[in-house]
Amino acid sequence: MKGSKPKTTTLALLQHRAGESPVDNVQHTLDAAKQAAQNGAQIICTQELFATEYFCQSEDHANFDLAEPIPGPTTGVFQKIAHDLDVVIIVSIFERRAAGLYHNSAAVIDAGGVLLGVYRKMHIPDDPLYYEKFYFTPGDSDPGFCAWNTKYGRIGVLICWDQWYPEAARLTALAGADILLYPTAIGWHPSEKADEGDAQHAGWQTIQRSHAIANGCFVAAVNRIGHEKPTDGDGLEFWGQSFVAAPSGEVIAEAGIDTEEILLTELNIAQVNEARTHWPFLRDRRIDAYERISRRFLD
Amino acid sequence: MKGSKPKTTTLALLQHRAGESPVDNVQHTLDAAKQAAQNGAQIICTQELFATEYFCQSEDHANFDLAEPIPGPTTGVFQKIAHDLDVVIIVSIFERRAAGLYHNSAAVIDAGGVLLGVYRKMHIPDDPLYYEKFYFTPGDSDPGFCAWNTKYGRIGVLICWDQWYPEAARLTALAGADILLYPTAIGWHPSEKADEGDAQHAGWQTIQRSHAIANGCFVAAVNRIGHEKPTDGDGLEFWGQSFVAAPSGEVIAEAGIDTEEILLTELNIAQVNEARTHWPFLRDRRIDAYERISRRFLD
Repeated sequence: MKGSKPKTTTLALLQHRAGESPVDNVQHTLDAAKQAAQNGAQIICTQELFATEYFCQSEDHANFDLAEPIPGPTTGVFQKIAHDLDVVIIVSIFERRAAGLYHNSAAVIDAGGVLLGVYRKMHIPDDPLYYEKFYFTPGDSDPGFCAWNTKYGRIGVLICWDQWYPEAARLTALAGADILLYPTAIGWHPSEKADEGDAQHAGWQTIQRSHAIANGCFVAAVNRIGHEKPTDGDGLEFWGQSFVAAPSGEVIAEAGIDTEEILLTELNIAQVNEARTHWPFLRDRRIDAYERISRRFLD
Repeated sequence: MKGSKPKTTTLALLQHRAGESPVDNVQHTLDAAKQAAQNGAQIICTQELFATEYFCQSEDHANFDLAEPIPGPTTGVFQKIAHDLDVVIIVSIFERRAAGLYHNSAAVIDAGGVLLGVYRKMHIPDDPLYYEKFYFTPGDSDPGFCAWNTKYGRIGVLICWDQWYPEAARLTALAGADILLYPTAIGWHPSEKADEGDAQHAGWQTIQRSHAIANGCFVAAVNRIGHEKPTDGDGLEFWGQSFVAAPSGEVIAEAGIDTEEILLTELNIAQVNEARTHWPFLRDRRIDAYERISRRFLD
């Protein structure tokens, strides 16, 4: 089915604040998805773990109760609107795969409501207030990086910490994705914001723009907003600024730092072909010389 | 020897115009290197193919006469100043390896004058007015991507078109390089400059900044200036703007578009450790899942 792509696709990124109630958060995201579809969206992407506050700020066994299977209740309600509104939806889920086995996942639902598959986050961070290694087993699907044909284009899904890894973007693009979608939850430590906040945000945007450039594809990141303090301490200020980069690396749409937004962007998929023809990086890859990428360090 | 690095290193990038006379160009670059050393430079990097105009604007067999071996006359004169001034120098050379076998290479000369090795450009472009595949055989060293211990730090060298490949930067960083140096010759087609020039330059800088971010190392690009028209037609306007990015991806030094400059920058090598500790991307690479990077496309 590769090659049978529509020429333009309207993408919607759902950037918002999360509250304490998962029921309310899911309803809020559903409402935003419906509004996006009414506004013309064909592919809709949620922010990472939209159903909850970012619970990884602490290591608390009680939080495992927030997880659910795929398919499950949340994918079910989104499959229904994918069917009713004929939209593709990428739904970030805290996935319970088995007792003691959890993933940070994204369900890919085609227009019409069919669940095409699940991407399980491959790179798991563990840093102060981002204690994800406690909660999430790294993805072990084969292949871990892949792409799906949807009604509105061939897409790949990666999640947050994955965005720092050129290997992840490359493999997903080589699988044929024209759009890389990154549900994300990233923010500032309030104590670092004044001195390092701008550089941290710039680094985050820069490396994702570079994936667009290196691979000649669209890249979209969907981040939450809001200052969340689920535990004692300063919490995290999620920096929003969801954005879309064209295959040239240019930012063609960007949301605010602290505003709930449905970021609607029309993607001219023909730009993938144009970029890759004029900047033919895929032509010249030295695939005979990359084997040691699979080594930890060359010492 | 890894780990026994000095804490700061002063880097000089030699950005200038090339004229018709190779003798004059080499002398001009030698003079700039000497000046850089007097200004405190410890590592000096030339621009790509500094000895000549960018002859790849046409496919002309006569141009093979511009090549020379390594070691050869040009590396000889730079080895002498590396000895006399106790500086490391990366010297870009159109290398004649054998009859009918030429490379786009860079000689790495340690302080004291020892020739440590040669990097042969791995990714070779071929696009209008950049007819490099006619002249240069792709590098075939084993390993193709590597790093060298010099008196003033552990460095890696890549060349121009290599800068678009995250794989090249990654492998060179995994080999232990704290600084990636890119001798470069890139410019605008005059007919494209008004409409696409800014985006082209931004893409070029963005992807190199991303290598700094992904790998937590310094990245430096050394580009020429000047509008060269060695053949009929509009020629190429080389865009200068040599720059250095810190491990955070921030640009810490940048030269002008059309000015000859010795861009002197002090690098605090301890920032490599700091960046990699606070943004521990190397910790979490999924080396079990990258094998297909060595495939052309996943179809």
